[in-house]
Amino acid sequence: MLLKKNVPISYVFGKIKLEMALLALYSTAVYIAHTNFNFPGVSIPIAIPSILGTIISLLLAFRSNQAYDRWWEARTLWGGIVNDSRTFARQVLTFIDNSYGDEDKRAMKERMIKRQIAWCYSLSQHLRGQEGSKGLSKLISPEEKQSVCEVSHVPLSLMEYHGRDLRLLLRMNWINEYQQVAMDETLTRFSNSMGGCERIKNTVFPVTYSFYIHILVLLFVLILPFGLIEFFGVFQIPLVVAISSSFFLIEKMAIHLQDPFENKPTDTPTTTISRNIETNLRQMLKDESPVEAEKQVIVTNSTAVYYVL
Amino acid sequence: MLLKKNVPISYVFGKIKLEMALLALYSTAVYIAHTNFNFPGVSIPIAIPSILGTIISLLLAFRSNQAYDRWWEARTLWGGIVNDSRTFARQVLTFIDNSYGDEDKRAMKERMIKRQIAWCYSLSQHLRGQEGSKGLSKLISPEEKQSVCEVSHVPLSLMEYHGRDLRLLLRMNWINEYQQVAMDETLTRFSNSMGGCERIKNTVFPVTYSFYIHILVLLFVLILPFGLIEFFGVFQIPLVVAISSSFFLIEKMAIHLQDPFENKPTDTPTTTISRNIETNLRQMLKDESPVEAEKQVIVTNSTAVYYVL
Amino acid sequence: MLLKKNVPISYVFGKIKLEMALLALYSTAVYIAHTNFNFPGVSIPIAIPSILGTIISLLLAFRSNQAYDRWWEARTLWGGIVNDSRTFARQVLTFIDNSYGDEDKRAMKERMIKRQIAWCYSLSQHLRGQEGSKGLSKLISPEEKQSVCEVSHVPLSLMEYHGRDLRLLLRMNWINEYQQVAMDETLTRFSNSMGGCERIKNTVFPVTYSFYIHILVLLFVLILPFGLIEFFGVFQIPLVVAISSSFFLIEKMAIHLQDPFENKPTDTPTTTISRNIETNLRQMLKDESPVEAEKQVIVTNSTAVYYVL
Amino acid sequence: MLLKKNVPISYVFGKIKLEMALLALYSTAVYIAHTNFNFPGVSIPIAIPSILGTIISLLLAFRSNQAYDRWWEARTLWGGIVNDSRTFARQVLTFIDNSYGDEDKRAMKERMIKRQIAWCYSLSQHLRGQEGSKGLSKLISPEEKQSVCEVSHVPLSLMEYHGRDLRLLLRMNWINEYQQVAMDETLTRFSNSMGGCERIKNTVFPVTYSFYIHILVLLFVLILPFGLIEFFGVFQIPLVVAISSSFFLIEKMAIHLQDPFENKPTDTPTTTISRNIETNLRQMLKDESPVEAEKQVIVTNSTAVYYVL
Amino acid sequence: MLLKKNVPISYVFGKIKLEMALLALYSTAVYIAHTNFNFPGVSIPIAIPSILGTIISLLLAFRSNQAYDRWWEARTLWGGIVNDSRTFARQVLTFIDNSYGDEDKRAMKERMIKRQIAWCYSLSQHLRGQEGSKGLSKLISPEEKQSVCEVSHVPLSLMEYHGRDLRLLLRMNWINEYQQVAMDETLTRFSNSMGGCERIKNTVFPVTYSFYIHILVLLFVLILPFGLIEFFGVFQIPLVVAISSSFFLIEKMAIHLQDPFENKPTDTPTTTISRNIETNLRQMLKDESPVEAEKQVIVTNSTAVYYVL
Repeated sequence: MLLKKNVPISYVFGKIKLEMALLALYSTAVYIAHTNFNFPGVSIPIAIPSILGTIISLLLAFRSNQAYDRWWEARTLWGGIVNDSRTFARQVLTFIDNSYGDEDKRAMKERMIKRQIAWCYSLSQHLRGQEGSKGLSKLISPEEKQSVCEVSHVPLSLMEYHGRDLRLLLRMNWINEYQQVAMDETLTRFSNSMGGCERIKNTVFPVTYSFYIHILVLLFVLILPFGLIEFFGVFQIPLVVAISSSFFLIEKMAIHLQDPFENKPTDTPTTTISRNIETNLRQMLKDESPVEAEKQVIVTNSTAVYYVL
Repeated sequence: MLLKKNVPISYVFGKIKLEMALLALYSTAVYIAHTNFNFPGVSIPIAIPSILGTIISLLLAFRSNQAYDRWWEARTLWGGIVNDSRTFARQVLTFIDNSYGDEDKRAMKERMIKRQIAWCYSLSQHLRGQEGSKGLSKLISPEEKQSVCEVSHVPLSLMEYHGRDLRLLLRMNWINEYQQVAMDETLTRFSNSMGGCERIKNTVFPVTYSFYIHILVLLFVLILPFGLIEFFGVFQIPLVVAISSSFFLIEKMAIHLQDPFENKPTDTPTTTISRNIETNLRQMLKDESPVEAEKQVIVTNSTAVYYVL
Repeated sequence: MLLKKNVPISYVFGKIKLEMALLALYSTAVYIAHTNFNFPGVSIPIAIPSILGTIISLLLAFRSNQAYDRWWEARTLWGGIVNDSRTFARQVLTFIDNSYGDEDKRAMKERMIKRQIAWCYSLSQHLRGQEGSKGLSKLISPEEKQSVCEVSHVPLSLMEYHGRDLRLLLRMNWINEYQQVAMDETLTRFSNSMGGCERIKNTVFPVTYSFYIHILVLLFVLILPFGLIEFFGVFQIPLVVAISSSFFLIEKMAIHLQDPFENKPTDTPTTTISRNIETNLRQMLKDESPVEAEKQVIVTNSTAVYYVL
Repeated sequence: MLLKKNVPISYVFGKIKLEMALLALYSTAVYIAHTNFNFPGVSIPIAIPSILGTIISLLLAFRSNQAYDRWWEARTLWGGIVNDSRTFARQVLTFIDNSYGDEDKRAMKERMIKRQIAWCYSLSQHLRGQEGSKGLSKLISPEEKQSVCEVSHVPLSLMEYHGRDLRLLLRMNWINEYQQVAMDETLTRFSNSMGGCERIKNTVFPVTYSFYIHILVLLFVLILPFGLIEFFGVFQIPLVVAISSSFFLIEKMAIHLQDPFENKPTDTPTTTISRNIETNLRQMLKDESPVEAEKQVIVTNSTAVYYVL
Repeated sequence: MLLKKNVPISYVFGKIKLEMALLALYSTAVYIAHTNFNFPGVSIPIAIPSILGTIISLLLAFRSNQAYDRWWEARTLWGGIVNDSRTFARQVLTFIDNSYGDEDKRAMKERMIKRQIAWCYSLSQHLRGQEGSKGLSKLISPEEKQSVCEVSHVPLSLMEYHGRDLRLLLRMNWINEYQQVAMDETLTRFSNSMGGCERIKNTVFPVTYSFYIHILVLLFVLILPFGLIEFFGVFQIPLVVAISSSFFLIEKMAIHLQDPFENKPTDTPTTTISRNIETNLRQMLKDESPVEAEKQVIVTNSTAVYYVL
């Protein structure tokens, strides 16, 4: 989804292979029945399927719209997480004044920024229904790791640790009370982004709607060959396959877009985004870590995987 | 609504059983009249019902849009309540500095966080027109319980108690003035979410619109068999039932979505959300309460109940 | 608009009685002309009115959308006024610390909260073009009443008094400077809501659009009987009345929704909302006033009046 | 645009006089050609122009939507300027404490509020491409006038003076540092509104779209008479004029709405709004100036001018 | 895109020259085949292409909408960068109090404002995939230039320098802690705008959708001549070219609008906007630089380049 490569046509059609085969069979059968046995009344006026088509287009447009909005909102929420992570890191780095070259302060800054990176990975895994504490060992202290492993909502627990560190910073007078509140507002925005993602994850798109549109599409497909056979003869077969495939494709797209955190290859690329956040935050920490090289590999892998259908 | 199970088809059609039976009867009657008595002019051009269908689709799309927006706004408001409850708990836990292991401070924190849980349940019940103070005994002190029982708007009263506790915290110097204002902003957001829910609850969707669409759908259903009978004969009956049911289903869905706080099984699941908030906040309090087990039971019950129609 | 009663059908049709009568007459005349005199060419293809109908539906859907948005924005602005009034009252009650049981402070709080109630009524009247200072005697002091009667924009003047009281509170050290700024932000939100309402009130919906749609609807109505007479004969008359009424109804609804502060029975119920604010704020003041009883009467009256067309 | 008078029909049609005359000529010519010379094939099926009409409606609805959104955003931005100007005046009046009856403080307040009025007029003129410093002599000091005349962006320069006065107020301890930042936030909102207006002013609506729709409308108009002549004969002429005029009107409206700061009579009435701001702010200053009388005259003039097409 | 010149028709059509030539050839071939060889069944009912046209219009309207929203969001984000740059400069100029005519303070102010200008250019280049540190030598110190050249994300690094300077200002007591937080909020807004642009840049519009619409348009174009040839004969050729070109044009427009940072002549004009920001900020610095003259030249050049297709 973050990658601009051309999607191979085979991938696009791979999603509806079965439907296309059945359609070809069905319309061929209609053609043969019409030509050989000459059923009376096998042809119906074109007006019926075409009006059905207009109605379905209207409803698919509405539905694609809602699905697209959910997907774009999910993307925007993660965009907000990128922004706020950078803001948080900047606040950590510049609000705490380490002009005395204090090593303790440097360690504290690193702890908080690494925990922020951990939070992003953890949220990404939590949203996809995976273990939220996986792979955090390099980013947080063993005690914290131990503690967050015991709770069910890992990112929420990490946010608490952020809050406690803010209190600690204030008590040690490393930040003043205004700065504490300003940083707390950044935590609030993290909380809002997390809650927004969970809302999208946990709220099913109204199923009747999908169900109803699916029935209409099937009806349309069944009727279409009878409407076209009079004028197109054998050319009716590719026409039916082409038009029907379009409707199936667009329906599939809406289904994919409406649930952007389902651990499918077409999801919001939360892992890639988390990795970018890590790169940015480590750049800000001036910490030349091997993440760059590592990232290269993973991006290469993912090019084969992340399409948007 | 929060549950991803497949909705059984029987449930979907259960909502329009009566309409479907009447439709089947009606279209059969038209078929018999047409075949046996051969009424002249019983067939009308297909253009008339099909154009009616396009117009209705257009209006239903507009209406579903508005209904969906109301429902999504209600969902977003409750999503905001989740976020702000977590934020409020984090602020309570980290702004109040209990480094001295002060038992009083711990009790105060617990009181405020439990009252926040009470507020969520109370708002949920208030919106559904139930007694707002039901089941709050375990969460707030008997004096508060006594006091809120006397007023008509329980959640508003609980918010006041939050405000008074903030004043108390400031007077005892447990928080500074800057932190008081930051927490007061969180209360303001609660106030806004509550007001938003009441706005949706109390504002009727313009009735003329519903009324007008309903009349058009009826008109369409009455005319449809006459338009199809020429070409489809007896197959007209299932076709009429299928197409008309779709319109009825989509109309029903809009009616359900547009009033998301009516204590119907398809509502915004405010009780489930409140329960999640309770779990999150108790996790933050590190308070191993029996709510987990209790929740399990209730979720199991609700799986049988919460569909989105 | 705040009331959920079923709107009697007679009320809905009362709005378009005249149009329906004229339509019935007109289509009857067309029927008689067609049957008795057998004009050649009196019948036109159904395609023409039906396409006109599709175009009109499209434009009416767009227009209803804009009108609905204006109405919903007006409703949201008043919802915001409810929220902010409660927030303001909470801030007044909890920021001013009257732990010493100071009578002066209590009086000050009551003065500010009552002035807030007065502001709501005054804004409601100002938006409807009525005298803004009517009925404020019980809520503000005679001196203020005297003063606001002299200016043209009463709510703006009341906001100023709020601002001056904030300054007074700061000078007497009853609130700190930080709290003053936080309360000033609440005043800013009142100012924004007031300005938003005035914007909607003072900005005419583009008239060409309404004009154009109205002409198209008329054209459609004039042509419709000629398109239907061939197939429906005398049944054409109720069909014409039914379809045309729908268009007229939906047009009327858009006209009503687009100007939500015009002192019509279908307006945004600003008086009822103000009254609710009064109830909430007096509950917060723990002031058992006779407003409850009084409200009962007025709501009963208004049930007969507030429909949403 | 701020005035609710009925727009005379002549004004509406004045905009498309030429188009209507040409249309009448053209359709008459088609009629004559058809009746007298009896061209073969001069009549085409009604389906062709009617489908074109549907497509155009769809695209016009989309385009009107975007144009309406631009116009409404411009209106909302100026509504925000009204709100923020009142807020700024309230902050100036109540944050600066002149309990000692200090004349200097009164002069400072007047200077800042009058400069705010000047900023509104100046922004209005700047957006319309006029000299931004025109008519500011009565509102700002000669030195400021001199200074702002030298720069190209007058409103930006006035904002700077506001900022400097805030610094001055803080240095003299007439406001505290919290209040400075709160007022600076109001200046930030002015800056955002100004930038938003410039964005709308400077960003052209995608021209291909307009161009494409215009070509389709012309095509439709050229084909329409041929489609109607069969069924309507001479009545085709008014029908063609009526339907085509509607499309032209709606296209014109979109063109007018999409550029709301072009110094046309149908613009966002920035001058009138600035005048209202002046009235409100002077009321707040309790400054009985002759602006009321003056305004009367100008409003009377403008009634003849401000329509919304 | 910022320029209001009329786009020459040749430019508009230049984009689809090839498509138009092929269309003309194809429809001529169909005409010849129909006239000379008199293929049976070469003519199909007009209903089929016209319904296809309606469906495509619907989907193109939806897609144009989404593409337009992306483009407008990109434009709004850069509008926000303009606003915030001005706000930041105002805060730098007025929060730092240089009443003592301190040369150090003046130098500091200039450094921060020039770095802000550098940030805009750098972000513009970063978004277009160019070297982010190009041409910054005149705006930032050699040490900073050296440092930012080493990192991959230049604008992010410049933001850090802003943050460090804020810390420095606070440490030297040139601003108070409250002002630091207010200015940090402005930096947060810059961070959000930057992140928003990157989100649009990096998120591909769902490709299936584009693909599906493209196939439908091709299908439509192939079928159209057969639908029109019966009624229009040779006039079918220009009609096919005109209608099909419209669809191609509108599809092209959507493709251009949906990716607004691709270094194409039709992009969001980030360089021009950056230049305007430079002019505004230098005006605020009262720094008569040669940028005015220089800008003149570049604008003249760009008039030939920036169209909106």
